[in-house]
Amino acid sequence: MTRAGAGHGSALLVLERSALLGGISEEPDRLTRRFATEALAHAGEVVAVWLREAGMSVRRDNAGNVVGRYDADRTGRRTLIVGSHLDSVRDAGRFDGPLGVLVGIAAVERLHARGQRLPFAVEVIGFADEEGVRFGTAYLGSKVVAGRFDMDYLRLTDEDGVTMADAIREAGGIPESLAADAWSGSGALGYCEVHIEQGPLLEAEGLPVGVVSTIAGQSRLRVTLSGEAGHAGTVPMELRRDALTGAAELVLAAESTARDEPGLVATVGELAVSPGAGNVVPGRVTLSLDVRHGDDTVRERACARLREQAEAIAAGRGLESEWRALQETPAVPTSLELSGLLERAVEELGLPVRRLTSGAGHDAVIMADLAPIAMLFVRCAGGISHNPAESVTEDDVAVAIDVLSRILELLAEVES
Amino acid sequence: MTRAGAGHGSALLVLERSALLGGISEEPDRLTRRFATEALAHAGEVVAVWLREAGMSVRRDNAGNVVGRYDADRTGRRTLIVGSHLDSVRDAGRFDGPLGVLVGIAAVERLHARGQRLPFAVEVIGFADEEGVRFGTAYLGSKVVAGRFDMDYLRLTDEDGVTMADAIREAGGIPESLAADAWSGSGALGYCEVHIEQGPLLEAEGLPVGVVSTIAGQSRLRVTLSGEAGHAGTVPMELRRDALTGAAELVLAAESTARDEPGLVATVGELAVSPGAGNVVPGRVTLSLDVRHGDDTVRERACARLREQAEAIAAGRGLESEWRALQETPAVPTSLELSGLLERAVEELGLPVRRLTSGAGHDAVIMADLAPIAMLFVRCAGGISHNPAESVTEDDVAVAIDVLSRILELLAEVES
Repeated sequence: MTRAGAGHGSALLVLERSALLGGISEEPDRLTRRFATEALAHAGEVVAVWLREAGMSVRRDNAGNVVGRYDADRTGRRTLIVGSHLDSVRDAGRFDGPLGVLVGIAAVERLHARGQRLPFAVEVIGFADEEGVRFGTAYLGSKVVAGRFDMDYLRLTDEDGVTMADAIREAGGIPESLAADAWSGSGALGYCEVHIEQGPLLEAEGLPVGVVSTIAGQSRLRVTLSGEAGHAGTVPMELRRDALTGAAELVLAAESTARDEPGLVATVGELAVSPGAGNVVPGRVTLSLDVRHGDDTVRERACARLREQAEAIAAGRGLESEWRALQETPAVPTSLELSGLLERAVEELGLPVRRLTSGAGHDAVIMADLAPIAMLFVRCAGGISHNPAESVTEDDVAVAIDVLSRILELLAEVES
Repeated sequence: MTRAGAGHGSALLVLERSALLGGISEEPDRLTRRFATEALAHAGEVVAVWLREAGMSVRRDNAGNVVGRYDADRTGRRTLIVGSHLDSVRDAGRFDGPLGVLVGIAAVERLHARGQRLPFAVEVIGFADEEGVRFGTAYLGSKVVAGRFDMDYLRLTDEDGVTMADAIREAGGIPESLAADAWSGSGALGYCEVHIEQGPLLEAEGLPVGVVSTIAGQSRLRVTLSGEAGHAGTVPMELRRDALTGAAELVLAAESTARDEPGLVATVGELAVSPGAGNVVPGRVTLSLDVRHGDDTVRERACARLREQAEAIAAGRGLESEWRALQETPAVPTSLELSGLLERAVEELGLPVRRLTSGAGHDAVIMADLAPIAMLFVRCAGGISHNPAESVTEDDVAVAIDVLSRILELLAEVES
């Protein structure tokens, strides 16, 4: 394997293809590509062409997942799955999702160029929904593949009142057949996902890639504080039951709890004030709380402490508090064996191994049900993601392709 | 004057009339009566009937203000104006505004019933706009009467894009003639306004009425804090520039500044988070700040201190802050002479005199340009206002009518 040779040529191609996919959008002036839209179908068709050019057979399932298969040599019975997603948030960058698919294609292209078969098949999947923008339910694509799709989702509606079932039909799928799309190959060897870091650590440390050790668990909570609305001019400070001043204390408590615990992040990203007029003392505030950590015990302890603090703040101010857990996702550790091979591949390139916790969720969370998982993070400029300013360098993409290619070779040694 | 006699009969009538006016609304299920609407015109017609029944001649000006005039005896050259407003906020209570008009009518009714003329005329005005809900500019009605109406207002549009000029025409007024509606009587003796307290002090102290010493000055500010939006899972706490945690500190600083200064109130009633998603670190927060005090120096010092605190908070968190003064209204003291007569009338009823600062603005603020002003506050249940739950008792209304009737007699002694 010559890193400065094929690696750089394919990296440039990956960047060109990212740019091309980045132009396939529901909206004229920005990149938005939600589940089961024409834009997503169009992106899938383009990716299918590249999968075929890399020597793969291609199928599209009822959810709109695009799957390329590069068959094993005559001895191979198992399959390594490489993937990421092709859908995007609104006003997205071009790398969150597609990069992992395109790096997978680049690695298979190298095998194809050499006419090389491995003792296992390689499937490259472009998932149809990871962001969950259209129906509010993330990981739809990988859930179908992992056999975790809940048929009740089909009744969910998007903002235009279209049900998921109708959206899937409109996009050419048969909702009733989704269960049959669950992965049923002859044994999944593993699932490997390349993704931009979406955070600033690799950049801060001057590293092109990092190996994910755990995908953090997440608590999504909704907290409501209720006091009494009143006239901003006539209710004296000592008689107020201001829901917003209570909420402000809770926002700061969340920040300080997270600052006190290494690796913990806590975020209030939404905060709605009612009635919400400049001359009215706020009677009610509803806020979101997002708490994440690689260790579920740490996260759960932090949530319990924040709940106590919310109750104490409310009690001290004559407010009522309501605490609602919307979602609890446990942490998902990556496979020690697969991650170990990734680390070895990184070392062989002469790079320091940086293990990272992924604070964001990924398709790998769902695919962990099906197979051992591994994730490689690629440095992105400023840690910026979910933003048109998302950016990666050609050099870093070349490293990612090299690492993925090398892990295929290492796995071939293990499997043969 | 027999308090338990005429006073109580008229108080019941005032409550009945309040209920009747409360049913005249733009909306079927709640009370909303904005400037230059059919509902306001209808309310004005009903009030005109009551003004005439009380022996007054009635005119309606181009802004929709309804003015009843009870002429002086042959010696009288001057006029005492009694008034308040007939427009309302959305989903309003029935007393904020109309109570002052109806109590004024009740006091004149007593004179009329006795065939008594005073050595000054009495005008009772129902102003067409105090709340400013439709065009965002409060006190339109009293501004026309006080000669302070700015003809540029006519180009303002409501939420449906209707200009104020067209709204006035639609309601039967001639916008070009508004200047001619400025009060030009033979000398305004004073302006006297009865209004619900809209605060909890009288109730807390068990008093039916209070005498306003000052209408507080008000600063309306808009503060924007800008940091950097980021992924709630991937940006570590120490690298965040979270605009909402900064805003939370400012909300608490405003509260503590106001708590430290007797009579000062500071309120953050609006707070908007951008981008406003549960999994995104807030990049920008815009909030309203409303600061009021009876002493302008105290208020201005508090605003300056809060601005310093906002800048210090921003500097400490790597945020940018923008501080914009939207409105600065100086405090308006009431007339010592007129208020002294109100206090004497209260004392003569055997009630303790309670002097209050009005935290809310009132038509009296504008009318102070035209004449000495005085205001009598009436206790309201729970201090609740701008809410259908607004409530006053028949007993308290009887006291208000008695006080207003008595001040007419006291002024007659002074004037004759």
